[in-house]
Amino acid sequence: MRMKKFINDPEHLVTELLDGLALAFPQKVRLIGNNIVARAVPKAPGKVRLVTLGGSGHEPGLSGFVGEGMLDLSAVGDIFAAPGARRCLEAIRIAARESESVLLVVLNHSGDVLSGNIAMEAARREGIDIQRVLTQDGISGDPKIEDRRGLVGFLPVYKIAGAAAEEESSLDACCRIAERIERNTRTLAVAVRTATHPSTGQAIFQLGDEDMEIGMGQHGEAGTGRMKLKTADETAEIMLNMLLADLAVAAGEELLVMINGAGATTLMELLILFRAAARILEAKKIKLVRSAVGEFITTQEQAGFQMMIARMDPELIRLWDAPADSPYFVVR
Amino acid sequence: MRMKKFINDPEHLVTELLDGLALAFPQKVRLIGNNIVARAVPKAPGKVRLVTLGGSGHEPGLSGFVGEGMLDLSAVGDIFAAPGARRCLEAIRIAARESESVLLVVLNHSGDVLSGNIAMEAARREGIDIQRVLTQDGISGDPKIEDRRGLVGFLPVYKIAGAAAEEESSLDACCRIAERIERNTRTLAVAVRTATHPSTGQAIFQLGDEDMEIGMGQHGEAGTGRMKLKTADETAEIMLNMLLADLAVAAGEELLVMINGAGATTLMELLILFRAAARILEAKKIKLVRSAVGEFITTQEQAGFQMMIARMDPELIRLWDAPADSPYFVVR
Repeated sequence: MRMKKFINDPEHLVTELLDGLALAFPQKVRLIGNNIVARAVPKAPGKVRLVTLGGSGHEPGLSGFVGEGMLDLSAVGDIFAAPGARRCLEAIRIAARESESVLLVVLNHSGDVLSGNIAMEAARREGIDIQRVLTQDGISGDPKIEDRRGLVGFLPVYKIAGAAAEEESSLDACCRIAERIERNTRTLAVAVRTATHPSTGQAIFQLGDEDMEIGMGQHGEAGTGRMKLKTADETAEIMLNMLLADLAVAAGEELLVMINGAGATTLMELLILFRAAARILEAKKIKLVRSAVGEFITTQEQAGFQMMIARMDPELIRLWDAPADSPYFVVR
Repeated sequence: MRMKKFINDPEHLVTELLDGLALAFPQKVRLIGNNIVARAVPKAPGKVRLVTLGGSGHEPGLSGFVGEGMLDLSAVGDIFAAPGARRCLEAIRIAARESESVLLVVLNHSGDVLSGNIAMEAARREGIDIQRVLTQDGISGDPKIEDRRGLVGFLPVYKIAGAAAEEESSLDACCRIAERIERNTRTLAVAVRTATHPSTGQAIFQLGDEDMEIGMGQHGEAGTGRMKLKTADETAEIMLNMLLADLAVAAGEELLVMINGAGATTLMELLILFRAAARILEAKKIKLVRSAVGEFITTQEQAGFQMMIARMDPELIRLWDAPADSPYFVVR
């Protein structure tokens, strides 16, 4: 597969895309420091700041969710690369100038965890009141929960902890609610076609013309094995059953279900997959109370999707429904 | 290019994707009649109803924009096919049961125009007060304005006329404001990779490995000619200059600029292209007052994008900024 992308010098990919984000949404975000995305209008002093970090090439994730009711600051890395501890610390210091306390949300990928940990320790030595939530919703890969990858499950964490922070909840309370939604979230990814790395032009992974792979990571990391491409209904059933078993969901419980497109898989398909999941839940008498279908974190033009479920309760639903106004997630 | 899509029986593509839309957004939309998407909660009696029609396979367009402050009803056709006059008339009759007056928004494609015209004449014979706005923003294809295709320029028409209807403007006033934004909108598309038709599995068009084509229609209709793939900045400059010349934009005027992804072109690229357009406008002293960057109407997994410009004025900006709550376009 030949790379055909509208880019300029690959050296400037990240600065140009962030520049585009800030120019397109001047009422919502602005660039500060060294590739850090911040809210255009910081929230009131004293409220807990939400900071995240992660690589580029996954747009709209992660910086597309900086805004009212969601993230305050995002430290941005190169394509598929963590931003490093220095930039992460820079974002934390900016947050701490505006508030006494910072909640750092880190997706479980080794580079991000390392950057986040070093920055957090340095921030604590400077007297900054900071706590960390690690997202590890991906049920494939390592069976040990602490080694699971962070996939699209970051989105309910940003949304729910962001809403709590907006309501002037304490750092402890924001951290507790973030951990509650994180512990109750499970995600599984499937890929059917690779993408090209925008800096090198190389395919990210290889996959046969008839095959799909369930359990892939965000960057083509191997999953649980390859199988022949299946129908939407069959694929949704396999994945949803794995997710429900892992989260031990019982009849009568309430779920948020998300279908996240990887890049080239159409919204038509995502909606057909969502329908399949909704019907299976109905048959199992599990309550589908909230949903999201679209592209929230992508891997360039990869074809495939992530299916995410999260066990909800009245407080989580209330915070999920609260107003938000980031570039790529708006709630009225 | 082999088709690898998550679908079931191609016969049921449209009913399944609409079912998915209604299940995913039960607070915003519902299905009624024969493949018609309506608001979950109809607006107050008496207000003008906005009705549209068009084929499927372009999600989120068109039915993803049914909701508060935008469309009231969408009559949905098969993949890349008009819904026919009967279904369009069915939607108009439903609208007319709730209100005295209906504004029909039709994208200029022959099947849609034919369906819309027959339905509108039948509705008028039944005593329904109905007017039509035809969108023909695509500057490529036929140089005669009346034969130009309707591309992503439908979105500001839905948004602005929808906001006017929400404010209890009369049918004449809604029609006038819709025509004002329509007349001031220009769009140009470019494609770099074809897509597969989800019903047949066939490629929609052919394009060389090194080539791009400017001026393509929504379904791969031929454009102004092929050229070697260019950088983002070069492509944006060529396209923006064609759009500015066609709309005869002068320094000091105010523009809305939209970059609409065709399907597989990444948001990373769309933001880099937007940045290029913003910088060119700045150099020309044309004011970039509003923007939208994302996927609003797609052609399956086609790679490419549409660039749209619209000349704004204070009233158009006010209506563009008004609240909206459709599945795929939300304004707080």
